[in-house]
Amino acid sequence: MASKTETTMKEDELLEKVVSGEMPLRKIDAYTDTDTAVRVRKCAIEKMNGIKFEHIQNYTIDAEAATKRNIENMIGTIQIPLGVAGAIKVNGEYANGDFTLPLATTEGALVASVNRGCTVITASGGSNVRIFQDLMTRAPVFKLENVNKVKDFVDWVKEPETFTNMKEKAGETTRFGELLSVDSFITGNTVFLRFAYDTKDAMGMNMVTIATDAVLNFISEEFGAYPISLSGNMCTDKKPAAINNILGRGKTVAADVTIPKEIVEKKLKTTPKMMEEVNYRKNLLGSARAGALGFNAHAANIIVALYLACGQDAAHVVEGSSAITTMEVNENGDLYCAVTLPSIQVGTVGGGTGIATQRDCLNLLGVAGAGEVPGHNSKKLAEIIAAAVLAGEISLIGAQAAGHLAKAHAELGR
Amino acid sequence: MASKTETTMKEDELLEKVVSGEMPLRKIDAYTDTDTAVRVRKCAIEKMNGIKFEHIQNYTIDAEAATKRNIENMIGTIQIPLGVAGAIKVNGEYANGDFTLPLATTEGALVASVNRGCTVITASGGSNVRIFQDLMTRAPVFKLENVNKVKDFVDWVKEPETFTNMKEKAGETTRFGELLSVDSFITGNTVFLRFAYDTKDAMGMNMVTIATDAVLNFISEEFGAYPISLSGNMCTDKKPAAINNILGRGKTVAADVTIPKEIVEKKLKTTPKMMEEVNYRKNLLGSARAGALGFNAHAANIIVALYLACGQDAAHVVEGSSAITTMEVNENGDLYCAVTLPSIQVGTVGGGTGIATQRDCLNLLGVAGAGEVPGHNSKKLAEIIAAAVLAGEISLIGAQAAGHLAKAHAELGR
Amino acid sequence: MASKTETTMKEDELLEKVVSGEMPLRKIDAYTDTDTAVRVRKCAIEKMNGIKFEHIQNYTIDAEAATKRNIENMIGTIQIPLGVAGAIKVNGEYANGDFTLPLATTEGALVASVNRGCTVITASGGSNVRIFQDLMTRAPVFKLENVNKVKDFVDWVKEPETFTNMKEKAGETTRFGELLSVDSFITGNTVFLRFAYDTKDAMGMNMVTIATDAVLNFISEEFGAYPISLSGNMCTDKKPAAINNILGRGKTVAADVTIPKEIVEKKLKTTPKMMEEVNYRKNLLGSARAGALGFNAHAANIIVALYLACGQDAAHVVEGSSAITTMEVNENGDLYCAVTLPSIQVGTVGGGTGIATQRDCLNLLGVAGAGEVPGHNSKKLAEIIAAAVLAGEISLIGAQAAGHLAKAHAELGR
Amino acid sequence: MASKTETTMKEDELLEKVVSGEMPLRKIDAYTDTDTAVRVRKCAIEKMNGIKFEHIQNYTIDAEAATKRNIENMIGTIQIPLGVAGAIKVNGEYANGDFTLPLATTEGALVASVNRGCTVITASGGSNVRIFQDLMTRAPVFKLENVNKVKDFVDWVKEPETFTNMKEKAGETTRFGELLSVDSFITGNTVFLRFAYDTKDAMGMNMVTIATDAVLNFISEEFGAYPISLSGNMCTDKKPAAINNILGRGKTVAADVTIPKEIVEKKLKTTPKMMEEVNYRKNLLGSARAGALGFNAHAANIIVALYLACGQDAAHVVEGSSAITTMEVNENGDLYCAVTLPSIQVGTVGGGTGIATQRDCLNLLGVAGAGEVPGHNSKKLAEIIAAAVLAGEISLIGAQAAGHLAKAHAELGR
Repeated sequence: MASKTETTMKEDELLEKVVSGEMPLRKIDAYTDTDTAVRVRKCAIEKMNGIKFEHIQNYTIDAEAATKRNIENMIGTIQIPLGVAGAIKVNGEYANGDFTLPLATTEGALVASVNRGCTVITASGGSNVRIFQDLMTRAPVFKLENVNKVKDFVDWVKEPETFTNMKEKAGETTRFGELLSVDSFITGNTVFLRFAYDTKDAMGMNMVTIATDAVLNFISEEFGAYPISLSGNMCTDKKPAAINNILGRGKTVAADVTIPKEIVEKKLKTTPKMMEEVNYRKNLLGSARAGALGFNAHAANIIVALYLACGQDAAHVVEGSSAITTMEVNENGDLYCAVTLPSIQVGTVGGGTGIATQRDCLNLLGVAGAGEVPGHNSKKLAEIIAAAVLAGEISLIGAQAAGHLAKAHAELGR
Repeated sequence: MASKTETTMKEDELLEKVVSGEMPLRKIDAYTDTDTAVRVRKCAIEKMNGIKFEHIQNYTIDAEAATKRNIENMIGTIQIPLGVAGAIKVNGEYANGDFTLPLATTEGALVASVNRGCTVITASGGSNVRIFQDLMTRAPVFKLENVNKVKDFVDWVKEPETFTNMKEKAGETTRFGELLSVDSFITGNTVFLRFAYDTKDAMGMNMVTIATDAVLNFISEEFGAYPISLSGNMCTDKKPAAINNILGRGKTVAADVTIPKEIVEKKLKTTPKMMEEVNYRKNLLGSARAGALGFNAHAANIIVALYLACGQDAAHVVEGSSAITTMEVNENGDLYCAVTLPSIQVGTVGGGTGIATQRDCLNLLGVAGAGEVPGHNSKKLAEIIAAAVLAGEISLIGAQAAGHLAKAHAELGR
Repeated sequence: MASKTETTMKEDELLEKVVSGEMPLRKIDAYTDTDTAVRVRKCAIEKMNGIKFEHIQNYTIDAEAATKRNIENMIGTIQIPLGVAGAIKVNGEYANGDFTLPLATTEGALVASVNRGCTVITASGGSNVRIFQDLMTRAPVFKLENVNKVKDFVDWVKEPETFTNMKEKAGETTRFGELLSVDSFITGNTVFLRFAYDTKDAMGMNMVTIATDAVLNFISEEFGAYPISLSGNMCTDKKPAAINNILGRGKTVAADVTIPKEIVEKKLKTTPKMMEEVNYRKNLLGSARAGALGFNAHAANIIVALYLACGQDAAHVVEGSSAITTMEVNENGDLYCAVTLPSIQVGTVGGGTGIATQRDCLNLLGVAGAGEVPGHNSKKLAEIIAAAVLAGEISLIGAQAAGHLAKAHAELGR
Repeated sequence: MASKTETTMKEDELLEKVVSGEMPLRKIDAYTDTDTAVRVRKCAIEKMNGIKFEHIQNYTIDAEAATKRNIENMIGTIQIPLGVAGAIKVNGEYANGDFTLPLATTEGALVASVNRGCTVITASGGSNVRIFQDLMTRAPVFKLENVNKVKDFVDWVKEPETFTNMKEKAGETTRFGELLSVDSFITGNTVFLRFAYDTKDAMGMNMVTIATDAVLNFISEEFGAYPISLSGNMCTDKKPAAINNILGRGKTVAADVTIPKEIVEKKLKTTPKMMEEVNYRKNLLGSARAGALGFNAHAANIIVALYLACGQDAAHVVEGSSAITTMEVNENGDLYCAVTLPSIQVGTVGGGTGIATQRDCLNLLGVAGAGEVPGHNSKKLAEIIAAAVLAGEISLIGAQAAGHLAKAHAELGR
């Protein structure tokens, strides 16, 4: 975050100073405009490493804005191919209608696969989607004297008055955020408090960090319990963790569709029975046997492609990958398919959502910026993502069922 | 994957056909050059959705190449800001020297944080890095009659001759890949065979899928066991799973550094003891209590930023997030820090590595394309990533130790 | 459960009928007194299997009572050696004073090891113990039409009025039990409701099963959601599960003690530093790397020995084994040790607590039967168990530290 | 372990000395015969605690033998009711024929439930059982200088010559045991070596501990790597851990049976379809959602009852509880049922197997002591246990299917 307080310097001069080691890379922004700073930095890196960049400099986004919010030591951008799948019909509480999905990926066949799933879902009347919980968490860790003191602390945290005070302190730091609950977990002399907030259209990590920081000051003053760290990993952010699957973090969403037998046969070239079989042995038994926290085929692929397109934090695919996919042949012989995403973190303001190419994608989905009702845009985005993951699962399980399993059936004459 | 066999059509005409629904999006490429197809598709999406794309069309990468390998239904690209951190000194078996890290991210402060960690590591003499295993897996699932038959199958798979034959069959499909081992896991009448391959400089997912497919044909013919699915989730790809932490998938890498007490104090504004304390309560106790598979602060952030910059599959951050970070004050009062990455999947050929902006980043690290000794480039990349994760962990834990923990110490007068 | 409505038959005659296959084993009780029935059954088994029982018939407990509550097809008893450890000083909220621990085990050295730990704890002033939560759960599973219906159901369950009604229905089935909360978890069209009850001095599995059954009828009638099974495994009973570690089941208890350096050296022949080191690398790093849900040395050994002695359900050692043990050298160089048991299930009425030998052991601890204040006896028992586990951990980690680690230090001259 | 070197003392005198605190409880054995020592100790405990034992003194087992091998500070025994279930027909490689199962439990209805399952299995032609792996592990933990040194160590361990030497050293400590493999796992500067042994008819924990101890000395001398602890928790003993599910510890066994539709209907009063449904939503989805390592209904109940009856280490039910139960309606409408036990630890020599009542139970199963072919008795026992667990699962899932699920079907008229 450069502050342009210094005298402007010429590009050549700057480059020389940087290459000679006189000026660190991060200081350049203080002496020139952002695009020049980016260019100088790029050239310096080239000289110092004896290479030539061919393409990263060909960016068109607003480097100055990016430098303020998203990046330090900028030298350009990378470009990721963007494709579309759909339209997919979504019957959610916030997303209702046909959506064209923007997917940024370098994995060949992914867009085509999701597209096929969208076709199947739309032909089947669309995907029902519901959000079951929406909150963002931050869990600081405290060390106390011993378990007696830990018990006192936990009891104090549970008092209604304590919560009221905490909520007030948190509220002073944010216009939109609201503290919803505080859960305590203990390990000997160590206490973790898991604060959960409504963060409306923001993904909310920054918001809850700042709000929790204010609460920590209150706790230190009132109870005298001093935190070891603002985050004690029971949040849990960007690590696979059972706590997020069980208690949720971000949005808990489920999407389903019942695909008529005929559609399975025509569009996926397999049968409901075979897809149920593949899903059962692969996504349930295989994941169980692998000690997995995710019971799905490739939810992560769809999630990360949508996250990249829509300016979300790509590292949050870690939590997204814990989806559970179920496929069941119903009484009519049709295929009921569902995905459950216990913990996805998305927002339509802040983070990478302001970058021009990403904003284009949010616009395509009609979710750019804050919703008219705060929170509705990010909920709409979450519903679309869940339906998209469902499309991806249907397509891949369908393909696997139509592949080896079909061959086996053919050879065995069943 | 369009085949240009059709007569070329004019842009207007194509657009009209697509918007009217006469022609599906994916067919456009067959009637015109790629850039035009991208443009037509973009315009069609705009018209059909009543929106206007401002920026995705401003791409400069080779759309034709991308369309062949990385994307379908392309409408443009997204741009992700690229910054640099470092240089970081790496003392690996493949990566030796000072490296400038390319990081593509929209998370403000991440590059600055990693940069700080790089400075600390380099000032401390660099990070030791070692690779402990390197293989890519694919685990098809079979259903057999009963456990007796399952036992026969597993016994047959274990026979040396069976392995020799499998290796031969697999070898016929690939110039670089080599079958290393086959492990069997059972669940009642269900068998999972986990095939592990050396895939040299390729991340290898496609390679092992094709090779395993050939082995499956052999198994069907020789033993009469027909697979339910080419992947049975014990691979495990892009789902958090204990099996990858324990048995490894991709590369198993560890990086460490011993930071002199003085450097901790000067550059991180805290003490070895406090960092050890934060790491212990947060990364170990907190993760344990959360039922986590990852014991680190934010490994996923660094990994995904490097993956995006270097054309890796971003969804593989799921496995990468299972890193374990350890910090220990040694007898001299200095701080020993290490990260262990049980399972990271990287390559320097194939996937997104050929896109011009990503190739620029691989060039910066000196790892673009196949290594002179096949496999050495991807190993070098893995070593650099491990050192970068270490830098990120040191910086964040340092900041947390210098934050609330320091304040607590000050207020308590300790 | 035999009902003695039939004519009494002679022993010989009964034996003949059973051996000839005319009468099933379980019918014998209907024709004679319990002890004779046991004897006939034993003899029949001997004849039918061509063996001779030497010892199981030498029981002295009340077979009639056991047959009514604890066993079917009884043929005798097994005897498990019972030893004592302690006294151990416990500073709990319910258990206060010195306790002699009854341990039923066949693992040589276990009692001696726990005894050593008790000595250390008592010499250090006793173990602080606190209970953080006390509830028993039952989680039926429902299937609904789709996620829309699932959302309606979950919303209905969350209504305060619904909870009031459920609590009333549950309350009609039990004099002591009380419904505390209902949590919902979803997976596509599947819903799990986790009912949590206060069950006072009973371990409570039967109580909550009956109470939940009544609630299920209410749910079927009021909402029309029909359960698939009274237990849907999210309870979770007798399977290792993260949900119990995180949300607790039974009692959540923590015990700690600070052992002065001199006592560690004199009684354990090692140092606080070495014990901290062993605990760190073994109980934390080793368990993390093993994908474990338990971070302790041998909590299960102590728990099962106490459970067997005290008439608890031995299978509940599964949940007990998820303890977390922490050891930390404090500023004075003393050793702070703690165990946290997220989920132990114990009771002082019902189950095996009424058998004479087990009742003897409960009496030894002063916790036989219901407490004067209902619930206090089972809480007291839980506190004693936690302190006992702490004793076991201290002793074993001490021994390991005094073993190889000490040898290493000696040989390295450190 | 008392050595009777002291002068014999009179009972009264001893009691007085103990009660007065002059003589510790554990010293009594040195001054009198074992039965007297037990009596004195019991009386002393009574006096010191102001209680009266009613029943624990009524033991009939050989206290002297128990004192030597199984218990310290013995004061009597507890008695656990023993019932029988079966006969169950087992079609294993080691267990072949009809077996009457001895079950020691205080949980009413358990024996009856297992008995019902046995009837169903036997009527269906018996249970197929196969053992897939048989080995016992011990995993010491080492700390090295840094990851470079760790790599050198791991490379050295992998050398064939190193293994040959380790095997020889291990072999010198045991007549039956045999080192099979050594796997290395690393975490920064920490290395875990997981040694796996064939231990024949012994459960083998002691055997592998002693053998590994000898190997550690070799490692210290040859490589200079000193262990921190003989066990580093990657064994993993008596803690729930993914590593045991994936790599196995003890015996990996699977048992199955196909139950004809008519038998399901007649004996279990439900249908194959309904049982499949309950198993799917409860054992698979419910366990997945709970973050469980066990996917079964109540395997732990059956395992612990058999372990107690047969003198096994009851704490090993922790590993046993990780069973996976699968139920599938096959093409004929019959029900295929299977249980997979990745990791059960059993033996027929050592531990509690020598106690008279337990030996009676082993005799009932024809597995007391070492097998004619070493190892065959413990394998036979493992096969019987797997079949018994299958019986328990079938019975309970059947009951749940015949309960609420049946009621739902009835009320919905399906």
